[in-house]
Amino acid sequence: MYPAKTYIIVNIIFQIFGFSCSTNTSTELKGSDPLPSWNEGQTKSAIVEFVNDVTNPASENFVEVADRIATFDNDGNLWSEQPAYFQLFFAIDRVKQMAAEHPEWKTEQPFKAVLESDMAELAKHGEHELLQLVMATHAGITTEEFEAIVKDWLATAKHPRFNKPYTELVYQPMLELLDFLRANNFKTFIVSGGGIEFLRPWVEEVYGIPKDQVVGSSIKTKLVLKDGLPVIERLPEIDFIDDKEGKPLGINKFIGRRPVFASGNSDGDLAMLQWTAAGEGKRFMLYLHHTDEVREWAYDRESPVGRLDKGLDEASEKGWTVIDMKNDWKVIYPFEK
Amino acid sequence: MYPAKTYIIVNIIFQIFGFSCSTNTSTELKGSDPLPSWNEGQTKSAIVEFVNDVTNPASENFVEVADRIATFDNDGNLWSEQPAYFQLFFAIDRVKQMAAEHPEWKTEQPFKAVLESDMAELAKHGEHELLQLVMATHAGITTEEFEAIVKDWLATAKHPRFNKPYTELVYQPMLELLDFLRANNFKTFIVSGGGIEFLRPWVEEVYGIPKDQVVGSSIKTKLVLKDGLPVIERLPEIDFIDDKEGKPLGINKFIGRRPVFASGNSDGDLAMLQWTAAGEGKRFMLYLHHTDEVREWAYDRESPVGRLDKGLDEASEKGWTVIDMKNDWKVIYPFEK
Repeated sequence: MYPAKTYIIVNIIFQIFGFSCSTNTSTELKGSDPLPSWNEGQTKSAIVEFVNDVTNPASENFVEVADRIATFDNDGNLWSEQPAYFQLFFAIDRVKQMAAEHPEWKTEQPFKAVLESDMAELAKHGEHELLQLVMATHAGITTEEFEAIVKDWLATAKHPRFNKPYTELVYQPMLELLDFLRANNFKTFIVSGGGIEFLRPWVEEVYGIPKDQVVGSSIKTKLVLKDGLPVIERLPEIDFIDDKEGKPLGINKFIGRRPVFASGNSDGDLAMLQWTAAGEGKRFMLYLHHTDEVREWAYDRESPVGRLDKGLDEASEKGWTVIDMKNDWKVIYPFEK
Repeated sequence: MYPAKTYIIVNIIFQIFGFSCSTNTSTELKGSDPLPSWNEGQTKSAIVEFVNDVTNPASENFVEVADRIATFDNDGNLWSEQPAYFQLFFAIDRVKQMAAEHPEWKTEQPFKAVLESDMAELAKHGEHELLQLVMATHAGITTEEFEAIVKDWLATAKHPRFNKPYTELVYQPMLELLDFLRANNFKTFIVSGGGIEFLRPWVEEVYGIPKDQVVGSSIKTKLVLKDGLPVIERLPEIDFIDDKEGKPLGINKFIGRRPVFASGNSDGDLAMLQWTAAGEGKRFMLYLHHTDEVREWAYDRESPVGRLDKGLDEASEKGWTVIDMKNDWKVIYPFEK
């Protein structure tokens, strides 16, 4: 029988061993290039210098490991969001799949538009009616059933322009950035306006971000008995919208700590970046500007999807870092490599 | 309370888990005793055997690292909860502190009872009125102000029986269990009926559990500008009660994964344990039975605080592991060592 102290010492020994593991990673990365898909230039330098600074114990800007929180928006920031949010394509496919059980949808908008693939008509509908679409297709089933449906969709659905699975339309440079931050002991989180349970089934595999490090919009749930066993049923009622002012609130609720690094691409992320910037000490606010109409899409102030207008002005005023996708990134998607 | 160094080390260890350099720990720890404050016997053996089994790649019960989720109730499970929930003592002290600004409390219940230290009168009030107490003392300030108030209270308040800070009334055997699980690549979470923002200021230092691994009850919040900077204001309105059926829902919302190990001490934890048990594969359901009237308290089926009645029956029926505090634990609190 050993005293508790021995156990702590063993932990310390392990820490020393493990620490050299993690230092190695970081050193190795410094020796090579931690961001190989990023062109040399101001953007890349700003990121690397920030990370080196806040992880340097001798720096006045040093940030303790526990405080190294990095938050990333998802749509248009880690994967594409054009010509429409990918979750909307999912909802549309679900409507078509479920139509046989819902004859009333043949005459009821916005379902009619979806079934007739009338995107012009669909575009006319407001947020409330699109929400109806999401509720009808995302609720009334258990969480486990929903997860299986999302996985199945991702395994079979293809993006209309690239004819590839949606999970291949993630940004290679951002995957490298996530890795680089984690190699420097940052804890990386997704903070998305998208549905938390739409994200969780795949972000672990695709981004290396664990399910419990996802903040997103949610609908209410209820514990019910099914065949004598408790299951969680998804209800057609909004619980939380993780967008705009909701993002700092979501971060506070789920993470409980202000990020030191926040990354987004639209006005929906502005409150998150402002909230990050308002913290004490050195912080990094990063905007992704979609400027590549050839390899991806070019859009900003006028786009109905992922509009970046006020955010662009504020980034310029405050000196936040803005990624110019066309010039800063060597490749967009992993499959280009 | 651990020294700051241990805290940093624990944090580093957390980070390292992400790098999967940790297989060695588990082997090294098996050489010594990972649970030195636990008496030899069925309870300790059951825990150690479970952990060894699900972390053994050759076992049919092997659980992948990403799925090694362990959830712990807090009140009466990681720290004591008698003669009343510690958060209630906090609310009472807050009422006394705030009384000068609220002359109406001199005649208004339940505030009057608090100000007159009339615990008999206070005990007569129902959940709704006690909630009023919490709202009045926990809301109307920013999240940062609230955090400072909690920290200040914990630094100065003393438990009425032990005359020690509340954070010293944590269970040494449970601290070892948390360490043991983490050394085996479990991610440990608190799932408490207590307030999430009451827990976050101290659980990292005391339990080695990061702020983002806390699930708890919450009130609503709002983003407001204060001197031109965004702050989060706490509103006097319930957002989520993380108790009973709320626990599986909270786990689903915050963690997104069913635990393989769940630990509680009251009927408020029963739904969490049932939810854990209902998952596929091997699972561990642990109840702490308060049987030590000398070193701590003895209570179960009739206690207004931390009642364990249905849970005790179900544990016995289903063969869940029940800790007999008096006989299974060599020491209760760290200061006894």
